[in-house]
Amino acid sequence: MSGSPATVDGRALRVALLGCGTVGSEVARLLTEQADEFAARAGAPVELAGIAVRRPDKHPELPAHLLTADAAALVESDVDVVVELVGGIEPTLEWLLSALRRGKSVVTANKALLAEHTAELAEAADASGADLYFEASVAGAIPLLRPLRESLAGDRITRVMGIVNGTTNFILSAMDSTGAGYAETLDEASRLGYAEADPTADVDGYDAASKAAILASLAFHTRVTASDVHREGIAGVTASDIGAAKLLGRTVKLLAICERVTSEDGTESVSARVHPVMIPRSHQLAGVGGAFNAVYVEADAAGELMFYGQGAGGSPTASAVLGDLVAVARNRVVGGRGPRESAHAGLRVRPMGQTPTRYHISLDVADRAGVLAQVAQVFAAHDVSIATVRQRDKHSTASLVIVTHLAQDAALQATVDEIGKLDVVREVVSVMRVEGED
Amino acid sequence: MSGSPATVDGRALRVALLGCGTVGSEVARLLTEQADEFAARAGAPVELAGIAVRRPDKHPELPAHLLTADAAALVESDVDVVVELVGGIEPTLEWLLSALRRGKSVVTANKALLAEHTAELAEAADASGADLYFEASVAGAIPLLRPLRESLAGDRITRVMGIVNGTTNFILSAMDSTGAGYAETLDEASRLGYAEADPTADVDGYDAASKAAILASLAFHTRVTASDVHREGIAGVTASDIGAAKLLGRTVKLLAICERVTSEDGTESVSARVHPVMIPRSHQLAGVGGAFNAVYVEADAAGELMFYGQGAGGSPTASAVLGDLVAVARNRVVGGRGPRESAHAGLRVRPMGQTPTRYHISLDVADRAGVLAQVAQVFAAHDVSIATVRQRDKHSTASLVIVTHLAQDAALQATVDEIGKLDVVREVVSVMRVEGED
Repeated sequence: MSGSPATVDGRALRVALLGCGTVGSEVARLLTEQADEFAARAGAPVELAGIAVRRPDKHPELPAHLLTADAAALVESDVDVVVELVGGIEPTLEWLLSALRRGKSVVTANKALLAEHTAELAEAADASGADLYFEASVAGAIPLLRPLRESLAGDRITRVMGIVNGTTNFILSAMDSTGAGYAETLDEASRLGYAEADPTADVDGYDAASKAAILASLAFHTRVTASDVHREGIAGVTASDIGAAKLLGRTVKLLAICERVTSEDGTESVSARVHPVMIPRSHQLAGVGGAFNAVYVEADAAGELMFYGQGAGGSPTASAVLGDLVAVARNRVVGGRGPRESAHAGLRVRPMGQTPTRYHISLDVADRAGVLAQVAQVFAAHDVSIATVRQRDKHSTASLVIVTHLAQDAALQATVDEIGKLDVVREVVSVMRVEGED
Repeated sequence: MSGSPATVDGRALRVALLGCGTVGSEVARLLTEQADEFAARAGAPVELAGIAVRRPDKHPELPAHLLTADAAALVESDVDVVVELVGGIEPTLEWLLSALRRGKSVVTANKALLAEHTAELAEAADASGADLYFEASVAGAIPLLRPLRESLAGDRITRVMGIVNGTTNFILSAMDSTGAGYAETLDEASRLGYAEADPTADVDGYDAASKAAILASLAFHTRVTASDVHREGIAGVTASDIGAAKLLGRTVKLLAICERVTSEDGTESVSARVHPVMIPRSHQLAGVGGAFNAVYVEADAAGELMFYGQGAGGSPTASAVLGDLVAVARNRVVGGRGPRESAHAGLRVRPMGQTPTRYHISLDVADRAGVLAQVAQVFAAHDVSIATVRQRDKHSTASLVIVTHLAQDAALQATVDEIGKLDVVREVVSVMRVEGED
C-alpha cells in the first residue's frame, strides 16, 4: 500500500506518552514492568521513548530522562506511536494531527476531541497510512468499539443503548435507593470522590454525548459529532421522578441511545441522544449499579448483545489503551493497518423533535368527573396514542399516570406543554421518556 | 513483509464457501443481498466464487453455476478466502491446510477442529502469511475472541468463565423451573428442537470442552487442546442436585472455566474444565436462560467484564462469520495481516486433580449425636476446610449440607469417596462444585 509507514523491522517500537495522570502512570508502569509480554504480543519490543507532562519537576516517580514539557517536540521526534491521555481540544488536536501527518500511529482516550474532530484526524491518518485507535474513549475497559467496528462489520447494527457515564449512574442509583433529591446526592457523590469538583461534563450529559457521537459514527458508518447529539443531563431529575418510576416498576438511568430510524418512505436516518430514561427494573441495564457501564447492541443478524464492565478508572482505562497499543504496534511490525474510519453510509442525523420516543407523564389533577376525557383529548389532538393510564385518588386531588406509545418527540413535548395549562391539572409531577417493555 | 500474500489491488475478493446449511445459506444470502455494503466495508467487492456442498442437486435455491461437490478443487481454484462451515475433522483439516498453504485466508466456525489442530493451522497460516479467523467458533454472535486476542492484548487475563452451550443451558434451566429429572427434560428439549437427535456432543460436554480449549489458548497465550480440558457433562445432574442447589439459593449451570493458577512457588499454570456448577441465583450468569450464552472475563487491569448474546443459530453465527470475512478482506486490500496465534507463554496445563475447587455435598445421615464429628474428621484428614454446614432433621434421618473452602479437586474427591463409606451416612444425595460467593 503506497501510503503505508515503513515496518519497524525488528527494532524496538518507540512510544511517546502525552499526559501522565491516573491512566498515563498506569500505562507507563505496565509497559515497563511487563516489557517482555508486550514484546511477545506486539512482535517487537515496545519502548517508552518519552513522557510529556505540564510540569516535569512534579513527577519524581518517573524516570527523569524520559520527561519533557514539550509535547510538540516529543511528537515530532523519532517515535512510532503517540499515546494521548492529556484530554481537551487545543493544543491536543494539533499534536495528534502532527503525529498522524508524520505517519505516526495514535492511540487516544480523548472522547471530547474525537466527538468533534474525528473527520480531520481520520483524514490525516488515511493520508499517511497511520493508525488511529480509541477504544478507551468509550466505556473504559469494556471492549466495545472494536466489536462495533470489526466483529459486527458484516452485520447491520440497528441500535446501541447504554450506560456510559459512571458519575451520573452512581448518583441516579443512590437517588433510587435513598429517595433523596438530586442536589443532596450530588454533594454526597462529590464527598465520596464519585463526582469531580466541577461535575458539569458528567451531570449535564456532555461526556455521555461525546460517547454517543463516537458510538453512532461507528455503528452507522456515518459522521456524527457531539453537536448532533440531543443532550439532557440529570440535574432536572427529581425525587418525584424517581418515585413515579418506582410506582411503575421502573428505575431512572441516563442512557446514550443511538438508533437507525427508517421513515415511512424507507429513508434511513440516525438518531443519537442522551437523556434520563425510565426503564423496567427487570431490564438488564437496570441492575447496572454504581460506576459500572453496560451497553446493549442490537443488530439484524447477531440479535441482542450486551457488554458490561468498568467504565472508568486508571487500570481499566489503561487496559483499553494498552490493547490498542499492542494492535498498532503489531500493525507496524507486519506492515499492515487497522480499519479506517468508515463514513460511507452518510446517513442524515434526525433532529430530536422527529425522533420516535415514548413518554411517561404523572399528573396531579382535580378529583372530578371528566378530567381523563379532557386530558385524553389533548393527546388525541397531537396524534399521540396512549398505552396505559392509571388513576388514583389522593384526598382532594387525584393522580393520573400515563405512558404513551411511540410518537414524534416534538408532538409529545407539545402535548405535555398543553396539558400543563389545563385548569383541571394542578401539577405536572413528572415527565420522562421510557424505554423497554413493561 | 516477506510471506504476505499479494494485495488484491481493487479487483473483487473471491470467496469460497464450504458447506451451505443453516449458517452457510445465511452467509450466502447476506453476501449477495448486501454486496454494496460489503464492498464499502472491505474496501473492495467481495464476491462468492463457489459453494461446495455434498449434494449440489439438493440445493435448487442456490445459483447452479456456483455449486460444486468438489471442495478440494474449489479451495485450490482462484479464490482469496475460504469460509468453512462444514464441520468435522477430516477431510476439513486437509482443505483448510491446503488453503492456508496457498496463502488463502480462512474463516471457520469449526470448534472441534480448532480445539485439536490450531497449531498446524496456525503454522500453515504463518508460513504463507494468510489469516486464520474463527470468531464464530465460540459463543456464536457474541464478539468474544476478538476482544480476548486484541482488546485485552495489553492486559493479563486471569479467568474466563461462561455458559457456552445453549442446549445444556436450556435443559438445566428447564430442570430448575420444573423440578423434572434429566432424561425427561432432554426428551422435551429434543421435541422442541433445542437438542439434536444425537445430543452427545452437547450433553456430554464435548462442544463446551472444545470452546474451553479455544478460550484458554487465547486468554493465556498457551496451546490448550480439547484433550487438556477436564470434561463432565450434565447427564449425571439429578433432580436432587437441582433441589439441593435451590436450598442454598443457587442454581446449576454447565460452565466452561479457564483459569490462570499460581502455585505457592509462584509458578503459573492453566486450568481448563467443563462441568456442572452451583452458582448463586444472584450471579449474573444465573439469569442467563434458554439458548443464550454469556461469558465473564477477569483481567488484572480491566477488572470484570461480561459478554452476553445469542450463542447459536443461523443468523447470529453468520454475523460472526461475516465480521471475520470483512476483516480478512480488509487485510487483503491493505496488504496487512490479523493477529497470529500467540502461544508464547507456553504454560503447563494443570490436571483436574491439582486444580483448586470448592464442593457442595449433601448427605442423608443417621439422626444421632456425633455424626458431624465423624464427617468433619474425614474432611480434616484430607486437609479440606469446611466453609459452611447446615444440619436439618428429616424424621428418622437428618441431612447435612456442607460447602467447602478451596481445596485440590483430588482431595475433595477422596473426601467424598470416604464419606460415602461411613456407616452413619445413609446416602450421598448430591455432590457438585460451586463457584461464586454466597
